[in-house]
Amino acid sequence: MTVWLVGAGPGDPGLITAKGLELVRSCEALVYDVLVAPELVAEAPDDALLIPRAKLKQAEIDKLLVELGSRGLEVVRLKGGDPFVFGRGGEEAFALAEAGVPFEVVPGVSALSAVPASAAIPLTHRGVSAQVTLVSGHSASGEELDYEHLAKTPGTLVVFMGLTHLPEIVAGLLAAGKDRHTPAAVVSNGTRPDGQSVTGTLAEIASLVDGLVSPALLVVGDVVAVGEQLAAVAADARALLA
Amino acid sequence: MTVWLVGAGPGDPGLITAKGLELVRSCEALVYDVLVAPELVAEAPDDALLIPRAKLKQAEIDKLLVELGSRGLEVVRLKGGDPFVFGRGGEEAFALAEAGVPFEVVPGVSALSAVPASAAIPLTHRGVSAQVTLVSGHSASGEELDYEHLAKTPGTLVVFMGLTHLPEIVAGLLAAGKDRHTPAAVVSNGTRPDGQSVTGTLAEIASLVDGLVSPALLVVGDVVAVGEQLAAVAADARALLA
Repeated sequence: MTVWLVGAGPGDPGLITAKGLELVRSCEALVYDVLVAPELVAEAPDDALLIPRAKLKQAEIDKLLVELGSRGLEVVRLKGGDPFVFGRGGEEAFALAEAGVPFEVVPGVSALSAVPASAAIPLTHRGVSAQVTLVSGHSASGEELDYEHLAKTPGTLVVFMGLTHLPEIVAGLLAAGKDRHTPAAVVSNGTRPDGQSVTGTLAEIASLVDGLVSPALLVVGDVVAVGEQLAAVAADARALLA
Repeated sequence: MTVWLVGAGPGDPGLITAKGLELVRSCEALVYDVLVAPELVAEAPDDALLIPRAKLKQAEIDKLLVELGSRGLEVVRLKGGDPFVFGRGGEEAFALAEAGVPFEVVPGVSALSAVPASAAIPLTHRGVSAQVTLVSGHSASGEELDYEHLAKTPGTLVVFMGLTHLPEIVAGLLAAGKDRHTPAAVVSNGTRPDGQSVTGTLAEIASLVDGLVSPALLVVGDVVAVGEQLAAVAADARALLA
């Protein structure tokens, strides 16, 4: 019996790891987050127990994993992104460890880099950004963001968030002195076919997201301009060649 | 013709994405970094051109990719970790875009989370860390780290580095006022069978790495203690059950 805490990746089902996919294909029980691609759930064996997380609270999920693991099943807990990057995988790991249920973590591609990449934005770029800072803007995290410090942090800032929190996050950064002309992007459903993104200055970004949906991610920093330039060069070159 | 900039993941060949593996298996030319697992290079078709990066400079790699792409080949550029996280993927993308060669980025699992996870350390943990900061400690990056700011940054600090730079990085953080008792870990060859890690206080960590080899990654923050606790609970539970 083993419970595998597996990262499903950022949205595109092709971005699960080879190892993670193999585990899904041979599991006896699959417990999966709402944001996990249906194509991945469909990879589980026909006779596997399929349990959507849906409305279960974290403590209920922890208990469920312990129960399934204790029954001797091969259990895959499929989580969006990476289990150990704002994925609360640590809490599930503790619950399993305390119950004596063997577990392993199989990392996944985090939205952190993959979602900006889907909008042509590199997180780091020579001469532009050599530091990446990641925070969560979901109120659910229970933490208040330290805007004073974040506004002074060099490099690229990435905020995992629901779109409803965007105005307050932008206002917090601006009030703490972040340059209102800093390039910013919001990427919605990044890496999925229905992905969309908008770019603008930090001051205007919150006014540009009409029609975008959660999950979304905010990128703040000069790499956003690098991404726009990259997209423009590529488009120009293709136009010349066409 | 397309050049695919593909992340190979952090070391364990099973951590490449399903999409990346499929591209390697069907490519006509494979240009790969030294740190890429040999098992992945072996997945390329028998008649594919195999080109190790070896001693090529970045500008030479850029030129090579443009040449291979312009010849109409399906080219996979396989890079350690993720192409857009200290991977210089942006530079290769610009070279291709400027030459009018179509390209796509296929994200990979970055060492950022996967390597700490291999030592049971979550990057974030409820009530312990809700912020992750990533910098590169390779002198090759040409950037000087802003120790004053980093020492005051809350949450988890991750430094990609060669082991030779560890003493100066630790000294920089301590001189800037980072608490010498902050838990720290160095993970060497994380996610690989020969992976090793050590943990200690920030003040002592540089004295504990004898026998470890590059590539290595430094983690500084209370999540290191969470990882130690997790490993201890799991070991205790298994001992009780045995």
